[in-house]
Amino acid sequence: MPGEVSSYGAYELSRDALVAFAAEYDPQPFHLDEEAARDSLLGGLAASGWQACAILMRLNCDGFLTASTSLGAPGIDEVRWLRPLRPGTRLSVRRTVLEARRSKSRPDTGLVKFLFELMADDGQPVMSQTGTIMFGARTPT
Amino acid sequence: MPGEVSSYGAYELSRDALVAFAAEYDPQPFHLDEEAARDSLLGGLAASGWQACAILMRLNCDGFLTASTSLGAPGIDEVRWLRPLRPGTRLSVRRTVLEARRSKSRPDTGLVKFLFELMADDGQPVMSQTGTIMFGARTPT
Repeated sequence: MPGEVSSYGAYELSRDALVAFAAEYDPQPFHLDEEAARDSLLGGLAASGWQACAILMRLNCDGFLTASTSLGAPGIDEVRWLRPLRPGTRLSVRRTVLEARRSKSRPDTGLVKFLFELMADDGQPVMSQTGTIMFGARTPT
Repeated sequence: MPGEVSSYGAYELSRDALVAFAAEYDPQPFHLDEEAARDSLLGGLAASGWQACAILMRLNCDGFLTASTSLGAPGIDEVRWLRPLRPGTRLSVRRTVLEARRSKSRPDTGLVKFLFELMADDGQPVMSQTGTIMFGARTPT
């Protein structure tokens, strides 16, 4: 239902997990080293934006996708990294349904466009993301 | 320089790395289990789209970002997962410069908009991504 807002999930990002992800996938100094990060735009050690995306995916799987008829997603329309994601932050998701419709080419498939916000424990988002997920429709047309 | 195209990088995605990423960040059956994946839209085991993003980031770090004056990125404009990314695929990057300009609010910062395509060994992309990266300008205005 467009306009519907849900909140769910709990994920605490440890410093070890932050640095391990960066070492494997995003080895820029400001994601690896406190001292280098202090002199960067991030102003201190902060997670790779791609780790924020991965954590949001995990929270979405646990929060609703795994138990749903999700068929996957063709892509993402927009990702905004709004502020640095620090080690020790406790994260959750605020999900808003933007649009829901039946696929024209595949009438057994529903397309739902979501706004996902990855929320920090101060109640403010660290990342926003919009994209469409495909679902198997519960009732055929 | 807008229009400039570069190709670089080599990354082979193993089945173990594919399943390990999915287990941690995207535990949907079609990213974890061959049999479940066969009956899905993906038609067989395929990587999480977020792992494709993470691999592209790693190839970009090694290919040019780590040695550049990169200051980070505010977000991503669009991600398209074009076809399933299978275990054993050898990946590389095709990068196209779409736009390059000086920041109006921060004249010591350059903003470069890129199209990144994550290429499989058959010469076709598995993912495309557009976004802007901030760089420290080499020459002050």
